[in-house]
Amino acid sequence: MKTPNSIHIIADFSGCPAELLELRQQGEEILRLTIEKSGLSCVMIRSHQFEPSGYTAAALLTESHITLHTWPEHAAVQIDIFTCGSHDRARAAFSELKSLFRPLKVAEKILFRRLDSLSET
Amino acid sequence: MKTPNSIHIIADFSGCPAELLELRQQGEEILRLTIEKSGLSCVMIRSHQFEPSGYTAAALLTESHITLHTWPEHAAVQIDIFTCGSHDRARAAFSELKSLFRPLKVAEKILFRRLDSLSET
Repeated sequence: MKTPNSIHIIADFSGCPAELLELRQQGEEILRLTIEKSGLSCVMIRSHQFEPSGYTAAALLTESHITLHTWPEHAAVQIDIFTCGSHDRARAAFSELKSLFRPLKVAEKILFRRLDSLSET
Repeated sequence: MKTPNSIHIIADFSGCPAELLELRQQGEEILRLTIEKSGLSCVMIRSHQFEPSGYTAAALLTESHITLHTWPEHAAVQIDIFTCGSHDRARAAFSELKSLFRPLKVAEKILFRRLDSLSET
């Protein structure tokens, strides 16, 4: 029985264009594009609109999940890409999100989750 | 403008009773109980059933999210509790999940996400 070696990319982007962070439909579209381009497999995308602006958008994948939480007032978005599948696809999704959100600054951490241990790059 | 100081509790539980890890309805109920007991605020709960068994269950919160990914064949569940709200409530949710899943082993990490930096306890 193979033990999973999941990759979890945790990243907070700041200095993003505010117009990408406001409406939940933008988050859903960004998730759709990211999943398509990276070859991940989507089960469902759901989102929640905050007032006056900002959203949470989440994709459940057959390989785990991607979530976005935006902070338009800080030009920021908090991202998680967690997959028990291909690490290359997770990294491709991360590149795609960087290219779509165009952050000026990225705070990131990569964890490897093997059920009995959590280690970093 | 106050900078958020989100807490992200990342934990992989193993040695859990297999019967809690099989059906997505169990995951939804565990999320419901956890959110209620910890005083977090639920926007929606969604789940996906894997065959022959195992599930992903996710709660979107007004304060971010909680996700569960189960591995019945390893008696394990991978947990994320991410909130821009009360750290005490996030820790209460973590205690509640430990008490519900009854793991024999817990691998955990706590991150503080301030948009421009990621730091650990």
